[in-house]
Amino acid sequence: QCNLTGWWKNELGSKMHVSAVDSQGNFSGEYHTAVSSAQKPIEPSPLIGSQHLDKDGQCTFGFTVNWNKFSDSTAVFVGQCFTEDSGNEVLLTSWLLREKVDSLPSDWKATR
Amino acid sequence: QCNLTGWWKNELGSKMHVSAVDSQGNFSGEYHTAVSSAQKPIEPSPLIGSQHLDKDGQCTFGFTVNWNKFSDSTAVFVGQCFTEDSGNEVLLTSWLLREKVDSLPSDWKATR
Amino acid sequence: QCNLTGWWKNELGSKMHVSAVDSQGNFSGEYHTAVSSAQKPIEPSPLIGSQHLDKDGQCTFGFTVNWNKFSDSTAVFVGQCFTEDSGNEVLLTSWLLREKVDSLPSDWKATR
Amino acid sequence: QCNLTGWWKNELGSKMHVSAVDSQGNFSGEYHTAVSSAQKPIEPSPLIGSQHLDKDGQCTFGFTVNWNKFSDSTAVFVGQCFTEDSGNEVLLTSWLLREKVDSLPSDWKATR
Repeated sequence: QCNLTGWWKNELGSKMHVSAVDSQGNFSGEYHTAVSSAQKPIEPSPLIGSQHLDKDGQCTFGFTVNWNKFSDSTAVFVGQCFTEDSGNEVLLTSWLLREKVDSLPSDWKATR
Repeated sequence: QCNLTGWWKNELGSKMHVSAVDSQGNFSGEYHTAVSSAQKPIEPSPLIGSQHLDKDGQCTFGFTVNWNKFSDSTAVFVGQCFTEDSGNEVLLTSWLLREKVDSLPSDWKATR
Repeated sequence: QCNLTGWWKNELGSKMHVSAVDSQGNFSGEYHTAVSSAQKPIEPSPLIGSQHLDKDGQCTFGFTVNWNKFSDSTAVFVGQCFTEDSGNEVLLTSWLLREKVDSLPSDWKATR
Repeated sequence: QCNLTGWWKNELGSKMHVSAVDSQGNFSGEYHTAVSSAQKPIEPSPLIGSQHLDKDGQCTFGFTVNWNKFSDSTAVFVGQCFTEDSGNEVLLTSWLLREKVDSLPSDWKATR
């Protein structure tokens, strides 16, 4: 299987909680980031996303984190579940963080 | 304002429809991609995401597209709304596409 | 053919000059960026890279720009030459910009 | 200090050798990749790049690997040197791999 429901933590110390995944693969939850480039103090932030429901337990998934409690930014994560030889489930993800910029000519630097 | 509700098209000919955005900024919709690296024929695919609701009409947003109707892949998009001098609203986005890979050692090539 | 020698400009107003490409495909040149996130004024910056020498004129290439004249950052570009129906040669590239960070825990935000 | 001269290996088992870095920060070397998405067998491939020469030993750098001995692709890496508490030097990098595509409309999928 590969169900994102529950708590996950990453190597930076960030944690996320995914509530129940519905029959379409949609889910919501909360992301507790350990790192930030914002001025205001970090707060837990809502996430919403979608996963495949493959039987082999190696599904791909994606989700959006809306940091509106303390910043203008939005992040997206995309990844895949794996089961290590030890039996541990791991999520490998890549992400993009979009910061708000003033105008179109600054778009080039908005995403990291 | 900056409300993603409605139809959008990009320079590749892909189109997306965003249904009503709720008071949290969450939305769902359908993505009609014009391009694909999958074997099976393209089908409209569900999307789910979140946007900021800034008054200035330049909000950032993100969403996930689950391609499960014709592939194992998931895509995420993150971007920002702008209004051009002409008055047209444009969305500038960056994206990541995660393809399913067999095992952890192939993870390096899974995302484009 | 596809030879990077000469002047190129992009949609942001940046320009680059590539000096002669050698028989291995190596080249050097100068990048005149129109945009910067650095504090100091922009200066033309050295670039060094390599291209394929395919007969079909659609070679891939990559290069590094060392911004040391006005910042601690380094950028890399990777792309491919194309000839448009009009006969114009265009370079399509993707890039990463690495900013210097103080310590390992800040690595997550160093690249855009 | 932070001098890339010498041998480096990464967590995927790839190795690279950087020859002497010149007074401008330019260097060349050879990349022995452990992973490939090409059809032909892997061969050591030339690299060329540039680094900053900061006194604090945490310089940023970038380089291009031309895979022309076994593929049409080009990769670029950008990163920064760090010294761990243990005294080990580590390079943290991000990369982009450009695969050759037939025509402009396929450009969207060329980079991973």
